[in-house]
Parts: sequence; C-alpha cells; structure tokens
Amino acid sequence: MADSQIYKASTTAPVNIAVIKYWGKRDPKLNLPTNSSLSVTLSQSDLRTHTTASCAATYPSQDSLLLNGQDQDVSGARTQACFRELRSLRQKLEKSDPSMPKLSTLPLKIVSENNFPTAAGLASSAAGFAALVRAIANLYELKENETELSRIARQGSGSACRSLFGGYVGWEKGSKEDGSDSVAYQVAPASHWPQMRALILVVSAAKKGVSSTTGMQTTVATSSLFPQRANETVPRRMKEMEKAIQEKDFEAFGNITMMDSNSFHATCLDTYPPIFYLNDVSRAAIKVVEAINVVAGKIIAAYTFDAGPNAVIYYLKENEAEVAGLFKAAIGEKEGWTGIRGDAVLANNGALEQVNAGASVAINLLKGGISRVILTGVGEGPIKTEESLI
Amino acid sequence: MADSQIYKASTTAPVNIAVIKYWGKRDPKLNLPTNSSLSVTLSQSDLRTHTTASCAATYPSQDSLLLNGQDQDVSGARTQACFRELRSLRQKLEKSDPSMPKLSTLPLKIVSENNFPTAAGLASSAAGFAALVRAIANLYELKENETELSRIARQGSGSACRSLFGGYVGWEKGSKEDGSDSVAYQVAPASHWPQMRALILVVSAAKKGVSSTTGMQTTVATSSLFPQRANETVPRRMKEMEKAIQEKDFEAFGNITMMDSNSFHATCLDTYPPIFYLNDVSRAAIKVVEAINVVAGKIIAAYTFDAGPNAVIYYLKENEAEVAGLFKAAIGEKEGWTGIRGDAVLANNGALEQVNAGASVAINLLKGGISRVILTGVGEGPIKTEESLI
Repeated sequence: MADSQIYKASTTAPVNIAVIKYWGKRDPKLNLPTNSSLSVTLSQSDLRTHTTASCAATYPSQDSLLLNGQDQDVSGARTQACFRELRSLRQKLEKSDPSMPKLSTLPLKIVSENNFPTAAGLASSAAGFAALVRAIANLYELKENETELSRIARQGSGSACRSLFGGYVGWEKGSKEDGSDSVAYQVAPASHWPQMRALILVVSAAKKGVSSTTGMQTTVATSSLFPQRANETVPRRMKEMEKAIQEKDFEAFGNITMMDSNSFHATCLDTYPPIFYLNDVSRAAIKVVEAINVVAGKIIAAYTFDAGPNAVIYYLKENEAEVAGLFKAAIGEKEGWTGIRGDAVLANNGALEQVNAGASVAINLLKGGISRVILTGVGEGPIKTEESLI
Repeated sequence: MADSQIYKASTTAPVNIAVIKYWGKRDPKLNLPTNSSLSVTLSQSDLRTHTTASCAATYPSQDSLLLNGQDQDVSGARTQACFRELRSLRQKLEKSDPSMPKLSTLPLKIVSENNFPTAAGLASSAAGFAALVRAIANLYELKENETELSRIARQGSGSACRSLFGGYVGWEKGSKEDGSDSVAYQVAPASHWPQMRALILVVSAAKKGVSSTTGMQTTVATSSLFPQRANETVPRRMKEMEKAIQEKDFEAFGNITMMDSNSFHATCLDTYPPIFYLNDVSRAAIKVVEAINVVAGKIIAAYTFDAGPNAVIYYLKENEAEVAGLFKAAIGEKEGWTGIRGDAVLANNGALEQVNAGASVAINLLKGGISRVILTGVGEGPIKTEESLI
C-alpha cells in the first residue's frame, strides 16, 4: 500500500562562524540583511546538525520537529516560510511529472540532533536551518542548487544560508525587495585553504544576553555609527576579505577578521540601550591573541566574537603550537583538549612564558573563565547520509 | 629692594566631566579637537586643584612646578606652550605700561595641590592646567577673559579649557588652522540649573589603560566608524544638549549623555588594536542605572565614562533618594559616603529591592568592585584665593 509508505532523507550540515558579521536586517520578515557577510564553514567532525526529514500519509496532520529529543514549535513564521517554499518547489515537480508521489501534500516529521552541547552557547540555528532545508530538499528530490536553497534557508535564519556551502562563504545582501538576490555563494572551497583552524573558547556561565534577532534591530534603529558600518566599512572589507582568501593571505584575513568583530561589537555598544556581548574574559582572550601576534612579529592568530562572550580564534595549522598550544598551556585542562584534534595539540609552556609578562592578568582571567574548548577547522557543506534518525 | 620681591597669586580650579566627549585631535600640537564637546563643571568643595603661581628674580633660573609635593617636568611642549603664551601677554602689558615690573622675565615657581586622591583615577589634568593658566594670568594681572585664557589652557590639556568656566561649558572645535577659534564658552552658569548632582563610582584596582593622548590618535587613525561620530553624530548632539540644558530637560540631558558615552567607547572598541576602558564593573553600573530608570518610568539617572572604568552618574537633587540612595544601599559602606554630602544621602533599601530582581548580578559586581565614591554637583569656575601655597 503506497498510502502507508514513509518517505525519508537525511543530511548533516555545518556551523559557520562569520569573519565579516551579519548584523541588521533591511527586511525582518524576509531576513534581508543591511550588509553582506562572509564566514568560514567549520568541520562537521566537530560541530554539526544531523537531520532526517520524512513525510507519510499516516503521520499526524501537523508538521513536527524534534530537536535533541525535544518537540519544537514549528508554527513560527520562519519555519513556516521554509516549509512553504520547499513544498511549493516539490509541487512544481509533481505537476511536471504526474508519476511522482504527492509528497507536498503529506505532513512532515523532522528529527534533528546536534553533536555539540547546546550549553556551549554556539549559535546552532545556522546549522539547524541549513540541515532542515537540505534534508527536505533531498526528501523532495529538488533539483535546486545550493544558491537557490540558500534563499530559502535565509528565511529560516539569516546566517543559515551560508551553512549550505563548505569552505569560505559569502552572503550577498542583494538589493531586490523580494530578496531573490540575497543569497549565499562560495568564495573558495575548503580544499583551497584547508590549513585554516578554529579554536573556540567557551566562556563559563555565559548568561544569555540580548538575542541577536532583537539586538540587531535595536542597533539599526538607534546606533548613529551603524550606517557607516553597513554602507562603507563592510562593503570595503568584503572585497578585501575575498582577496585575502583567494591569496591565502592570513595576515590580511586576520586583520580584517579582528577589525570586523570589533566594528560589530562597537555598533552594539553604540546601540541604545547598549548591548554588551564581550565580557572581561572575552577581553582577556583578545589580549592574549594580541600578545601572541606581538611575539610572532606578524598576525598568526585572529579573534572573532558572535553575539556572545565565546572567542573563536582562527589560525593556520603551521602555527598550531604557537596558538592552540599556548592556549592549552595557559588555560590548562578543560573539556575539549582531548580527542583526535585536542590530543594533537601539546601544551606549549615555552610560548606561554614569552607572553606571560605582558598578559599575566589576562591569562589568569582565561584560566578561571573558560569552561571548555572546541578545536576545529574549515570544513565541507551539508553531506547526505543514509543514517536516519527516524 | 625690588629685586628680592616675590610676586604671587593663587587660584583654585574645578574638574569637569564631559557629557559630549572630546576624543581625537585634528592638530595634536595645538590640541585642536576633531569635534566640539560639552561638560559639567563639578563643585570645587569636592574636587579642585589649588595653585599658587609666583615669580622672583631670586628664584633658580629654571621654571618649576610642584604638584602634591612632587617636582614635575615642565620641559614638555604643552606646559612650555602655556608659559610662553602667558609670558607674551604679560610682555605686551609691560610694553604698554613701563611702570609695571618685568615679571615676564622672571623664573616661575608653581605649587599645586589636589584635594582628591590621585589614586581615584580622575582625570586631574583639566583642573591642573586650568589652575596653572588662571594662576599665572592672575600673577601677571592679565586682562584677558576666560575665553581668551581657554585658548591657552587648551594647549596644556584639551579639556582644561572647559575648566575655566563654571556650570555647563562647551568647547567649540573651531576651524582655523592656528586654533584661535577653538575655545571654551559657557552654555549656562551653575545657577541656571543648580540641582545637577554627580555621583562618581571609583572602580577598585583600576589598572591604567591606554593613555587618552595616545588612544585618541589611534582611534582617529584606525577607526572606520570614527568619522561618522566626529562629523555627524556629535555636531547634532551638541545642539540637542545645549537645548536640553537651556530647557533644564533632564530626560534629554540624560539620554544624550548616555548615548554619547556609548558612542565614544564604541569608537574606542573600533580602534585597532581595540581600546577597552569599560570593564565588567562599569557595565554593572550601566545596568543599575538602566534599572533605576525603568523603575522610575523615565530617565532620572545618566551614566558617563571617561577614559577609564569609573562611572560618573548625573541626576537631579530631587531624585537623590532614588539614585544616590539606591547606590548607597547597593554597594554599602565605602569611603566617600561620609561628610556633608555623603551623610545627607540615606541608604534606600526600598528602592534597591525594586531593582534587585533584574539587576542582582550587577549589584553584586558593584559591591565588590567599587572602592570609593565621590558625591558632588555642578559648580563654579576658578576662584581667586589669598591662600598661598608658597
């Protein structure tokens, strides 16, 4: 009986951490940004969402989504927009080929799992919506490419559009009112510059601050410095950053990454009332990165902070001892220093001694303020899998 | 014998705390600012520099300056500029009236004392240079008015020009290359709005951060957001602030004060490498002020931060119980809650309870992080005194 058949498809999708930040919507409903942005897709061995999308006539009539074992509300406008757009694409296929089963008419059941602790305070919505859109697109056997799907994922969560690609990914803000030109594109695949590493320092007891959805619109409405960032600073840095990536120029990559993180947090501080995501521990991470670069005599480490206090530190594999090794020596035993990547990093006490004179206060703050670390690197986009969660 | 005569004159001069911040020089040598600024002159009962200027043929040939008992280097370009300009004005007088003693040819001996602990981390250079210039002008019997003297004091320390006036004081950035139109002016005397109070929360163990002289020029050179602040934001807010003061509109005064402090610190964060003056204790003070205003249903307290973590909180006398009283209840016994002003403030535990639910973390941070308080209010400009330090 075709009626009782359960159709399903599964995928994994990655987290991405922006080096040119998305902050501010020109259209909140369509998630159209005030400026373009650019991110590094992180390896799914360390951070990924695994999602199975399925549909069946026998399912309860309401679409459902289970994330890490917990029922999620799917009635929100964002999730609904994704479901609607994907169903409409499936419907077109069904019309063009009447032999196809009418999956667009069936209730969806989606099951999702993250391989990283939600307590880590990592923005998981990007990986989540990328996996959701990719999994349903697989289920529906859609022929749309990543760019076309990014337009849909963007409506779920802005930065999700960038998680549909691996490597180095841009998100063009676009200018059309309907958002049809606000899509993600690959600047370079992971294989172009595979040496990129990311060390994430998770700050203890990070209280949830202002949500980014609320925060960014308050910035747009109240910050007098924000227009300069959106209209002048970011367009210039997007070009500089694409060039740095094409030329694998880490000094330029690092400089722009740090300046853009500072610029973003500056507009948060210029918001009224001000929004603070960085705390004293975050600032200690900045100080240590600065000290590492001073000792190296060039930029070998670059910090960036999303809408929270956790530091993400980019570096190249060749400098692992000077960057991750120093941090391992500085902050000592923490969850995350074990496993294949973690064990490969040796605590570099020699390097620590070199920066300790100027950064001892910062190092002590880090020691007490970091609860765990995640060691990862640049990685691939969503990967189809046969491993089903249903 | 006229030869052995010691000529002297003494003055006191006040501290001022800007509500529209001076940050950035268009000409570092002449201390010409990139934007106009505006401050409140604080009462000299609580914060003042007392300076005696003297000259005598019998003095050692080198000019000297003793501050709080310590010999200061007067060979710096800034102090030299003040001496030179004041001597030249005296010389003009002496030429026009040959009966006047030739003080301009005699070595200067200056003795200065602050009535507040330098450890408090309060910018004392404004009061210091204002007192120095005013005392020498008195000694030389110069006829120049405060505006004309402000042009000289500015060359000693930019914000010193504002300490030559009492009340509410602007500093016009000017446009001339020689700086002759970059002078201070009184927006309103203290008597126009005498109810203005300032509570200064001195943050413990505040390590000296980046000096403002160095910091502001790094901001000018590297912050991409700074031009927007200097060219657009501040000129608009100067007008709004003058209006708020004329109309004694505390809500507008408070809003602009807080927004401008945030804007200034945002451009510091956007500096590369970033400059951080606010720490977690500073942010706690911001949170408590926000909570006070939420409970009041309007702006009755306004924070502002100079180039350091200390909070200055402006409020009106009528709200002393809700603002200073709440802080007294929150942070408990600290140096500064005693004396005439301090004793008049009663710990307001009732008000504290109202904000405690939303701001308990911030209140605990303050309790541990504030070493002393200074309670003061708007005050007069430099005051001539017969009390000599020599």
